[in-house]
Order: sequence, then C-alpha cells, then structure tokens
Amino acid sequence: QCGSASWYALSSKTASGERMNASLMTAAHRSLPFGSKVKVTNQRNGKSVVVRINDRGPFIKGRVIDLSKAAASKLGFVSSGHAPICISKSS
Amino acid sequence: QCGSASWYALSSKTASGERMNASLMTAAHRSLPFGSKVKVTNQRNGKSVVVRINDRGPFIKGRVIDLSKAAASKLGFVSSGHAPICISKSS
Repeated sequence: QCGSASWYALSSKTASGERMNASLMTAAHRSLPFGSKVKVTNQRNGKSVVVRINDRGPFIKGRVIDLSKAAASKLGFVSSGHAPICISKSS
Repeated sequence: QCGSASWYALSSKTASGERMNASLMTAAHRSLPFGSKVKVTNQRNGKSVVVRINDRGPFIKGRVIDLSKAAASKLGFVSSGHAPICISKSS
C-alpha cells in the first residue's frame, strides 16, 4: 500500500489505550490490528523503518499512515512534515 | 466551559488549513470559529493562557480543548499530559 505519511504527537492516550511516546517506533493506521508491525519505506530516499500500530488514523484522503516523530526522523521527513511512502507487512 | 485539556502536535495541516506550529498559542475545539480567541485556565495551578482556535477536536468525551505544546507549557502540564481546565471567551 502506497500513499502519503505524516507524523504527529499526543500527550493523551492513543486509540489502543497506550499513552503516546514520541521516541518509540509506533504509528496510526485505519484498520491494521493493534500490535501488528509494518515496514514503512520512504519512496524519496529509500530509507525504511518498522513500526508497531498502536493508534487509529489518519482520517485524511490519500494519507496511509501517521508515524511517531522518532519514526519520521528515521525516514528523514521530520522537517518536511510528510513523505511519499509504501508499507508492507513485517513479522 | 470546564473539563479536561491535553496537548498534541501535528506535522500536517490543521483543520483550518494552517500548518501546525508547536510554538504558537493555538488550540483545537469542536465548534468555536477558527480565529476566535479563548482564555484557558488550569484549575490545578490558576495559570492561564490565551489561545487561537485553528483546529477541530478533541473527539474524546469530557475533553474540552486540545492545546499546542507551547500553550500546555504555559499552563504547566506538558509532562503530566492533561489538566483540568475552564475556558472563557477572550477578545
């Protein structure tokens, strides 16, 4: 699945009930089960990261996944705010 | 209006179309017009801040307003993540 990613931070709990920690490799996806792991690849630079789904969203057309700031940092798009990505299942 | 506040950060655009800037005094409210200003007072320590509404939310029962990190910092609840607050109209 390919599309766009952005990053976000919350002081409150995520939809899974877990409190967000901006330094963990986590993400929000509309339908994947909480706890499942996904490999996200930045199509602009080829960098990839494995994130654990612990929240719901994004609720914007064309946006596939919303990442923690730490995950966005690994993919190199903290300052630009969004990136073209593809995601695939990870074990 | 009294209830709970939390803080959040986005790399993407807010519902008003403005990009979020964590260092500005902004907030998300379910119904107040974009651009309106609201005084938010932390019931725990009496500190207050005036914020400009530029986003929609929060979509959690009992939560009245979601603030930028800078606004939460002024109210002294960045580390705790949430606070009991009251809001009132500001000019």
